[in-house]
Amino acid sequence: MRATVMYAAHDVRVERVPDACLVESTDALVTVTRACICGSDLWPYNSMAPSADGNRMGHEFIGRVEDIGADVRTVKKGDLVVAPFAWSDGTCEFCRQGLQTSCLHGGFWGGKKLDGGQGEAVRVPLADGTLVRLPVGPDHELMPSLLTLTDVMGTGHHAARAAQVAPGKIAAVVGDGAVGLCGVIAARRLGAERVIILGRHPARISLAREFGATDVVSERGEDAINRVKELTKGLGAHSVLECVGHDEAMLTALSIVRAGGAVGRVGVPQHSQIPAAQPSFYRNITIAGGPAPVRAYIEELLPDVMEGRIQPGRVFDSVVNLDGVPDGYRAMNERKSIKVMIKP
Amino acid sequence: MRATVMYAAHDVRVERVPDACLVESTDALVTVTRACICGSDLWPYNSMAPSADGNRMGHEFIGRVEDIGADVRTVKKGDLVVAPFAWSDGTCEFCRQGLQTSCLHGGFWGGKKLDGGQGEAVRVPLADGTLVRLPVGPDHELMPSLLTLTDVMGTGHHAARAAQVAPGKIAAVVGDGAVGLCGVIAARRLGAERVIILGRHPARISLAREFGATDVVSERGEDAINRVKELTKGLGAHSVLECVGHDEAMLTALSIVRAGGAVGRVGVPQHSQIPAAQPSFYRNITIAGGPAPVRAYIEELLPDVMEGRIQPGRVFDSVVNLDGVPDGYRAMNERKSIKVMIKP
Repeated sequence: MRATVMYAAHDVRVERVPDACLVESTDALVTVTRACICGSDLWPYNSMAPSADGNRMGHEFIGRVEDIGADVRTVKKGDLVVAPFAWSDGTCEFCRQGLQTSCLHGGFWGGKKLDGGQGEAVRVPLADGTLVRLPVGPDHELMPSLLTLTDVMGTGHHAARAAQVAPGKIAAVVGDGAVGLCGVIAARRLGAERVIILGRHPARISLAREFGATDVVSERGEDAINRVKELTKGLGAHSVLECVGHDEAMLTALSIVRAGGAVGRVGVPQHSQIPAAQPSFYRNITIAGGPAPVRAYIEELLPDVMEGRIQPGRVFDSVVNLDGVPDGYRAMNERKSIKVMIKP
Repeated sequence: MRATVMYAAHDVRVERVPDACLVESTDALVTVTRACICGSDLWPYNSMAPSADGNRMGHEFIGRVEDIGADVRTVKKGDLVVAPFAWSDGTCEFCRQGLQTSCLHGGFWGGKKLDGGQGEAVRVPLADGTLVRLPVGPDHELMPSLLTLTDVMGTGHHAARAAQVAPGKIAAVVGDGAVGLCGVIAARRLGAERVIILGRHPARISLAREFGATDVVSERGEDAINRVKELTKGLGAHSVLECVGHDEAMLTALSIVRAGGAVGRVGVPQHSQIPAAQPSFYRNITIAGGPAPVRAYIEELLPDVMEGRIQPGRVFDSVVNLDGVPDGYRAMNERKSIKVMIKP
């Protein structure tokens, strides 16, 4: 079969790999019908050291179950399923409390040992714990929004939850990528009275407004911090969604959150320390978040997607086939595309 | 009057200062009947750059109201009152939500402009918002425990709350100072099933056990982390109370908390960054806490103190008069005393 392999920074290839197949009795074999490229794929795209055998890529996909192992109970051949960006057993202590990204027996797609979503098919370990059956066919018009449940919509929701968004509060979103935009949706969905987005890319900001952002701060650095303060009577936002991962973004987040507020971080940290240990202490700031337990959120968010109350699929502004994947990486890396959908 | 002034590291003097007196109509003048020395006083005691005019010291005191300004309503001459370690108006947005340490018009005792608690009397700004009347006389047998409501008991409680201690959970306390010991009390009070204390000072550990610690980890560094893991089926504690403030203590706290758990930090951070940004992200750790809004907690904790359900006053193992304050600092700094009470 064909799949995406990254060999080094800026070296993404689509090539023949061994066919995906069942290995364990708890596996499912899934043919990918939709996948996408993630902002987090751009971290290795810009930094990966050369590797002779490369890493399989992609952790967001929807597909059709082609075959199941003898112990799989919850999905069957022919089902259309959505996969969260982490696979999990669904039964361990962490899965039971809804933190499937810390599953004691789970893991993440791709790399050197597992298939990634950016390919023709995937062996899905622990299929019962991992996959969620979708109530639609593979070409349903809601497919883009359903696809965001694999990662970005659940991740934006996680940021909003970690930032303690609640009715009447002021939320601020640092980052205008697909996750930040989904964070706007999530903050509104959880009742935020105002949602301030920090960003300056016209198409993204325009979409953020359609998703419910009430204020746009296009300044940078100190100016952005001062602008958010002006918009919030000098106090800052109650809830800040940090959807980037750079130190500067975290510092901005910690500077625009009000005393007693919370920063929900979902951007993968690119530095080994969290800045502003003292200011965040003196102001009783809560710092929470991490890899979103998307598996837990699919069931919570699916009804809103199915009934059209949220439309996170609008973050996709480009569609490619497998051959177009390297161009898709380039387009996202150059910020020419917000998020690229793949139809293998 | 006489009061404590710190002029430099290890240079604490008790000397004549201008008499405390009413300045604003919202002030109260309070004669100190009990005060104490705080672990946080030891940070400047070990690091303060020489200062010609010095800093007035002390932020924990109980006293008798001698006089009040024209606008004071909630306390009157003759009342015995307890003061939290921060003064606050009680009416601003942050006070109303119970975060008096971020009061828009409040502040902290001592320094160059205000009286400190380690003296004969204190001008109390914003007396209505700050002071809480005590239902006992100045020599009541519960005075030591009541005195801890000014800081250490409320701070231990804040650590436990920030660490999300709840019935059935496993809590761990990093630090065996007075705050850590009060953290043990607080964790048990909030229902922790097990409380692991990390420390090795025999008298403190013994008191921790009496306060309800179920396990003692006396190892250091990696060995301590491994020992906590052993005690928790390899998963770590749900809630970790970081009651020190050193980078190493924070790193230990972040290493012994389980995925999805929370670290409540009340030790004043001695470094500008929080370590382990990435491991704490990947494991969805919540980092919360800061200066405890003790004013909010006095009312919550007072009944338990009055009815003897908690006995935080047992952290005092030494009593001095004002002349003995410099020796008190020395004793605490050399860990010969857990906490020193002052009877001016």
